[in-house]
Amino acid sequence: MDTTQTLFETLNPPQRLLMGPGPINAYPRVHQALSQSLIGQYDPVMTGYMNQVQSLYRGVFETNNQQTFLVDGTARSGIEAVLVSILQPGDKVLIPVIGRFGHLLCEIAQRVGAEIKTIDVEWGQVCTAEQVETAIKQFQPKLLATVQGDTSTTMNQPLADIGEVCHRHGVLFYCDATASIAGNELKVDEWHLDAVSAGLQKCLGGPSGSSPVTLSDLCAEVINRRKHVEAGIKAAHHQEGVDCPIQSNYFDLAMIMDYWGPERLNHHTEATSMLYAARECARLFLEEGSNTVIARHKQAGDALAAGLAAMGLRLFGDQSTKMNNVLGVYIPDEVDGDTIRGELLNRFGIEIGTSFGPLHGKIWRIGTMGYNARQECVLTTLAALESILLKYRAKIAPGQAVAAAMEFYR
Amino acid sequence: MDTTQTLFETLNPPQRLLMGPGPINAYPRVHQALSQSLIGQYDPVMTGYMNQVQSLYRGVFETNNQQTFLVDGTARSGIEAVLVSILQPGDKVLIPVIGRFGHLLCEIAQRVGAEIKTIDVEWGQVCTAEQVETAIKQFQPKLLATVQGDTSTTMNQPLADIGEVCHRHGVLFYCDATASIAGNELKVDEWHLDAVSAGLQKCLGGPSGSSPVTLSDLCAEVINRRKHVEAGIKAAHHQEGVDCPIQSNYFDLAMIMDYWGPERLNHHTEATSMLYAARECARLFLEEGSNTVIARHKQAGDALAAGLAAMGLRLFGDQSTKMNNVLGVYIPDEVDGDTIRGELLNRFGIEIGTSFGPLHGKIWRIGTMGYNARQECVLTTLAALESILLKYRAKIAPGQAVAAAMEFYR
Repeated sequence: MDTTQTLFETLNPPQRLLMGPGPINAYPRVHQALSQSLIGQYDPVMTGYMNQVQSLYRGVFETNNQQTFLVDGTARSGIEAVLVSILQPGDKVLIPVIGRFGHLLCEIAQRVGAEIKTIDVEWGQVCTAEQVETAIKQFQPKLLATVQGDTSTTMNQPLADIGEVCHRHGVLFYCDATASIAGNELKVDEWHLDAVSAGLQKCLGGPSGSSPVTLSDLCAEVINRRKHVEAGIKAAHHQEGVDCPIQSNYFDLAMIMDYWGPERLNHHTEATSMLYAARECARLFLEEGSNTVIARHKQAGDALAAGLAAMGLRLFGDQSTKMNNVLGVYIPDEVDGDTIRGELLNRFGIEIGTSFGPLHGKIWRIGTMGYNARQECVLTTLAALESILLKYRAKIAPGQAVAAAMEFYR
Repeated sequence: MDTTQTLFETLNPPQRLLMGPGPINAYPRVHQALSQSLIGQYDPVMTGYMNQVQSLYRGVFETNNQQTFLVDGTARSGIEAVLVSILQPGDKVLIPVIGRFGHLLCEIAQRVGAEIKTIDVEWGQVCTAEQVETAIKQFQPKLLATVQGDTSTTMNQPLADIGEVCHRHGVLFYCDATASIAGNELKVDEWHLDAVSAGLQKCLGGPSGSSPVTLSDLCAEVINRRKHVEAGIKAAHHQEGVDCPIQSNYFDLAMIMDYWGPERLNHHTEATSMLYAARECARLFLEEGSNTVIARHKQAGDALAAGLAAMGLRLFGDQSTKMNNVLGVYIPDEVDGDTIRGELLNRFGIEIGTSFGPLHGKIWRIGTMGYNARQECVLTTLAALESILLKYRAKIAPGQAVAAAMEFYR
């Protein structure tokens, strides 16, 4: 082994303006929260903070669900925790796929051993409640799993009507709201959602690494029926009508509910610093007020879209179903998308996003999320992008973008 | 829904001295690292930090393993990631159980569908290489999985001889080093370990929420053979001789290796703040020097043990195989363990640990880990414990403990 270990320099990340599809810059108060002193996991102050986090996220999710807590991992960990805790091998799950993250739901459900049916929608569109109802009648799923805001296409899947359909047909309804939460409406109880998972690193304005989750009483009951684990029982040998154990320990939401509940049964050691961050994200959101925060996201998104359009750039996807907090814009034919992104990063310290799959090389994705859903971020990004595009001789209309965006900030 | 959402007070955790079995107080520099600015996940600075983290943890683990990285979750997530990525349903795993966390390995392996054989050791003892060799010959496992330092019993399982046995018999060797790493010797390459997982919240002096993992080339190869996932294949229908897909997406180490490797294939969004913390923990360890840090833990542990013994208290378990960083001490018959712990917390702000299972109510566990493996923490804890025990009329020898501990700090 190399014993002359390089220690590297003192941590000193550059000050970037993160205007991509996330992660984004955290609110300053979240940075402060992250650096606070650690306390023991059963310290009454710590369990008090855990209770507060539950209460705060009930506010964020607009729910009365008792079972509202954090999963200790990135947003993806929350998705897997929900799917692996609800779905048993052979269970039927219906998944509307409006973009890349719909495929992720399929990927996870497949590893659980579920039987999957997808509703495939063209990228840039959303799924209708009629499509869902037809598929439910035909397929009779246990669960409908979907993504609310899919950053890969910038679309925001409407959920209220789908929730009504699921409720009427007795189908559990789960949604991954990582990219949409706090920037777009999300009414868990009103829309009959049984399970929602999220992340901090988009409109909640925190770092990646903690996943808020909420479960309806019905969903918690379905999961708790799988709690009992007998020695020697294997998930692989599932019998019809018998609830088989959850195939993950870390993602066993029945155990995680007991850890967050009054029993305080030891499971993992709660990630204290990330819990501090999650708590502060929720406080910021509720303090400003959900309607105000969502309106601020819409204002920033509309201003950005108007600015880009004024420049002569074309926007991607159905604008009537777009998320407030991220948009796709076609890369002008005359320029290379990655060159422009590189120049933005190196000359202005501004990050905008590339794209996945069928949209790769065709569109950029620009986000206005959380702390960055502000006038100065929108205007600076437009001014910087315009100047770099002009440098590379893109055919755009100069001097229009910032003025158009300013119209949204009288 | 209750619309009058309580926002709760500004985060202001009390300053505790955490002298339990972990989590413990983080090094001040780790708090600073946690609060640094966020950057994008494919920012060259970020991928540079990821490469540095890999290099730094090779130093911490004393390995040349290319595959050294973080799993985004608590220490338990690293354990599950390793076990679910190596073990297929029906695979044989041999697990020496020296305490509670050995049972956790069984619990996780069972959910994967592995065939488990345990070597059960009385709490307070460790397992011998002879016991392991006998069991390997008989059971022919694919993997031997064990815990190095098990805080439930305070024992430190010797690994070098077991590694030699595993190597000779062609058995993969995994160890959970969460509680022992950075406070006790751990030589991954020299001891023939194929996989090790850890956590930050013990002797590395960071918060819970990130799990450093290292894999030998052989182990990485075993895992990578399971990488290919075909649509429709279910882990539940495993055929003899066919490598079946890993049953978790989040814990699929083949995918996580591709995310940390030069391909940078998108998986989760790396938890930036926790990565900053993990980087700083490793820098602190390597800067002070592994031998110096481990000696500091031994000095603190020995001083604490001598102080408690001088008070007239009896220590738990075989002291010759005890971890440096945590000890068990019998609660005097005259007092209630939780009352004393409560008084320590409320009057001195000092936390010491209770115990699990067969030791519950019988011993306290006191840790001297990471930043708290210091003279002032040891002496303060002894002085505080003595004064509270005297208040509750425990039959101890007053005025001896601190003096005995000071002998270790000339």
